[in-house]
Amino acid sequence: MSTHNVLIAGAWRSSDSVGSFQAQNPATGESLADSYPTSSWADCDAALTAAQGAFESLRQMGPAPLADFLEAYAERIEARAQEITELAHLETALPLEPRLVTIELPRTTGQMRLAAEACRAGNWTRPVIDTVAGLRTQYGPIGPVCVFGPNNFPLAFGSISGGDFVAAIAAGNPVIAKAHPLHPGTTRLLAEEAQAAAESAGLPAGTVQLLYNMPFKDGEKLAQDTRLAAIAFTGSRQGGLKLKAAADAVGKPIFLELGSINPVVILPGALAEKGEALAQEFTGSCLMGTGQFCTSPGLLLLQAGAHADAFVDKTVSGFAAAPNGVLFSEAGCQGLASAVERLSSAGAEVLTGGQAQEGESFRYTNTVLRVSGAEFLKNSLALQTEAFGNATLIVVADSQEETQQVLNALEGNLTGSIYSATDGSDDAAYDVLAPALRLRVGRLLNDKMPTGVAVSPAMNHGGPFPATAQAGFSAVGIPGALLRFAMLQCYDNVRPERLPAALRDENPRELWRQIDGRWTQDSL
Amino acid sequence: MSTHNVLIAGAWRSSDSVGSFQAQNPATGESLADSYPTSSWADCDAALTAAQGAFESLRQMGPAPLADFLEAYAERIEARAQEITELAHLETALPLEPRLVTIELPRTTGQMRLAAEACRAGNWTRPVIDTVAGLRTQYGPIGPVCVFGPNNFPLAFGSISGGDFVAAIAAGNPVIAKAHPLHPGTTRLLAEEAQAAAESAGLPAGTVQLLYNMPFKDGEKLAQDTRLAAIAFTGSRQGGLKLKAAADAVGKPIFLELGSINPVVILPGALAEKGEALAQEFTGSCLMGTGQFCTSPGLLLLQAGAHADAFVDKTVSGFAAAPNGVLFSEAGCQGLASAVERLSSAGAEVLTGGQAQEGESFRYTNTVLRVSGAEFLKNSLALQTEAFGNATLIVVADSQEETQQVLNALEGNLTGSIYSATDGSDDAAYDVLAPALRLRVGRLLNDKMPTGVAVSPAMNHGGPFPATAQAGFSAVGIPGALLRFAMLQCYDNVRPERLPAALRDENPRELWRQIDGRWTQDSL
Repeated sequence: MSTHNVLIAGAWRSSDSVGSFQAQNPATGESLADSYPTSSWADCDAALTAAQGAFESLRQMGPAPLADFLEAYAERIEARAQEITELAHLETALPLEPRLVTIELPRTTGQMRLAAEACRAGNWTRPVIDTVAGLRTQYGPIGPVCVFGPNNFPLAFGSISGGDFVAAIAAGNPVIAKAHPLHPGTTRLLAEEAQAAAESAGLPAGTVQLLYNMPFKDGEKLAQDTRLAAIAFTGSRQGGLKLKAAADAVGKPIFLELGSINPVVILPGALAEKGEALAQEFTGSCLMGTGQFCTSPGLLLLQAGAHADAFVDKTVSGFAAAPNGVLFSEAGCQGLASAVERLSSAGAEVLTGGQAQEGESFRYTNTVLRVSGAEFLKNSLALQTEAFGNATLIVVADSQEETQQVLNALEGNLTGSIYSATDGSDDAAYDVLAPALRLRVGRLLNDKMPTGVAVSPAMNHGGPFPATAQAGFSAVGIPGALLRFAMLQCYDNVRPERLPAALRDENPRELWRQIDGRWTQDSL
Repeated sequence: MSTHNVLIAGAWRSSDSVGSFQAQNPATGESLADSYPTSSWADCDAALTAAQGAFESLRQMGPAPLADFLEAYAERIEARAQEITELAHLETALPLEPRLVTIELPRTTGQMRLAAEACRAGNWTRPVIDTVAGLRTQYGPIGPVCVFGPNNFPLAFGSISGGDFVAAIAAGNPVIAKAHPLHPGTTRLLAEEAQAAAESAGLPAGTVQLLYNMPFKDGEKLAQDTRLAAIAFTGSRQGGLKLKAAADAVGKPIFLELGSINPVVILPGALAEKGEALAQEFTGSCLMGTGQFCTSPGLLLLQAGAHADAFVDKTVSGFAAAPNGVLFSEAGCQGLASAVERLSSAGAEVLTGGQAQEGESFRYTNTVLRVSGAEFLKNSLALQTEAFGNATLIVVADSQEETQQVLNALEGNLTGSIYSATDGSDDAAYDVLAPALRLRVGRLLNDKMPTGVAVSPAMNHGGPFPATAQAGFSAVGIPGALLRFAMLQCYDNVRPERLPAALRDENPRELWRQIDGRWTQDSL
């Protein structure tokens, strides 16, 4: 059995590998046929050098070829959609319909085209001109970016196709993609199209590169290498924090998405108004994609009473009745089991589920845990353990005051939702509780589960630590997501003909620019 | 001798101290009479709790009282200008005129009023509205900020009066100021006016607080405390990196300014055109404020030849003829001596200076070092040691290619300047060299020394590591500097009456908002 090649410096070449691995079909537990290399440092080193060279060339080319690339790549993905989604289904067990075919693939190519548009338009660079002081500033590309993709969106957050990738590229940076080892084949197919599109757009070799895996020590070394300008990582808290430590030690910008339990608060009035419907909505949100979403609601907060008990009962029966979805991997099953075990040990009661499902596929029983507000407050950190998958914890507080204490004890999260009554009976409680939640989440929702993440300039898919490491940035949403891979570049007294296009007096592209305090598309 | 009080929770109170210290007059070496406390953890703990409480109140108050505070504070500083500048002169030996009285104090109050204006106007929050997706996002305050001020601008970068302070306040955050121990008295006078202004503006107790000093371990503990949201530090690389490590370990946002050697390149044509005038300009820029500026040019790059030699001679004679300015401290003198020693050991030749000046004041002889491009490249990191004070290193390269190699070997800096001929003879060289410098600096200048830092929305006083830790942010310039102390706050499906003022349909303040991709001051 031969091992697949890596993509370095514009060529698919044999890896200087230290090992190899195969993906598994989570639905059967069987290893898939193809073998992929674990790269040695030599591969990383070659990719870094090629990325550095590509960046030097890209800086002289302007945005058009990058935008062309993103659009050509989107078309190529669509042309090969069936093969890509079928392999993604095989490697992840995510359903072809609607998830991979109708939702994730169009999201991926749509995001790519938005990035192309942002790249071509250039408004993401936010030009600021002070005519009196002779200062002109914009964001510019930062340099080669390494993208570590997660397990849960093989296309839309994939290392060589997802939001981080397109944002880094659209901002003018080469990308070294580090595949997630649970879906190497999907990543390979995407990378083939990426490289073909890069060639057709005339991009320098090394603009897009792919390594499948590497020993952790080489990942750390790569993170610290001076040829690399920035890192994006989406994945587990444990792995992410280790990589962050390596990057921090050398002052390397690293943008992480590390997990989130996405608290949902249902206020008493809303619970009374439509508790049963909300229990169904909550159950659906928790079990969608077997709960393997960064925005899956892992903690629900209610106030004690008959309506709360009815909600819990309804949720428990919903979880128990639903089929147990397939998880991405055996390790994921074990991780979920450990998390449920930690939550139990910390005082939560398992109401349903709480065990692996027998059989060949990677499944865990749909799990609901419950804990009182008082118990939660005694052990609040352990009770915020993320159970990535089809499990959730319901916290039942005794009072609004205790609800607020629970909110005040929360770590940073991507999202937080509050459901309140339509008749205004919850408004006073909302006014007290929402400010506490606001500070702890990147996106605050009303009357809505957090699972959907629209690709919008007004989206914030980010949040305070430990959800991410920098609460001022979103990983989803164009053009905002590009700013993570950019540096601020000021031109002081620079001669007019030497200014970058966006900062010259003439503004033929009709960029939005802030000139002496006013946003305008005019020329100077 | 009694020890001064600290300002905690709105009151000047006796410090729970672990020691005390006195400032010195750098011009005489004598200790000043007043004694200041080194706080124990108990002081830090009390300040953190008070800041947290103040933040809860501030969030309900809107921007007006904070803007009122900044304006009242500016007026109070002006009313007490003589006493403040005289004590600053005594503690720092910076000249009263023009530096403290005519430049730094008006810059301080001017910056405060700009921050007040930005706070009141609210454009810094950058509202983004997507009417189709129902998403509305803005930057909001992040929480209590600790500001560690530097030694070199007791007013304009002072911990309780400078750019970081006003940016954090204008963004809606309480500040715990940690004075620089070289000018505690100046900081005390400022803090008295800050507290009085805070009271007059009706700000909650604990919005502005002052600690003079603390053991380093308590500074680390403070940095890691969950009650603190963010940190700003301006100072030495060594101290800053230690604090950064503590903050990074818990995912705490920290904005640092750690030093910069601000490379200046004079291209051959410019050197031929006006080498003598440039040598004078360079000498003046290096020796201004005894070189104790973050933007002082510590590295000059020339191409070898008769003009270069003449430039070096002229610079050396200028340095030798100028009086040796007073440095801030004995430790600063020793630090400068060590840096010059490191540069010499790494291969640079001392052309003039290179020794402490005898006498009671803290002075070091004006120092010029020289090294060839080839030698520089052999030991480029050591030869980028920052000699904070009246010393500079001239690198003489053999060729344009070697000049480029030197630029490629540079670490991140705040600024980089290129002088080129007016007749176009340097333009080809500029086009090759400027891109290399561009990537390594936050602000690129033409035909101008970097020393002046205008307070402008288009300023970037920031740069790649190790100049700062986050190259996307400026520490100078309003409103940009506020974004460091902010988090992105998205509202998803939030009921209209619950939206913050800036995100509602009506826009009575005429905020600049990005609505469906267009910047506008209109209501929706």
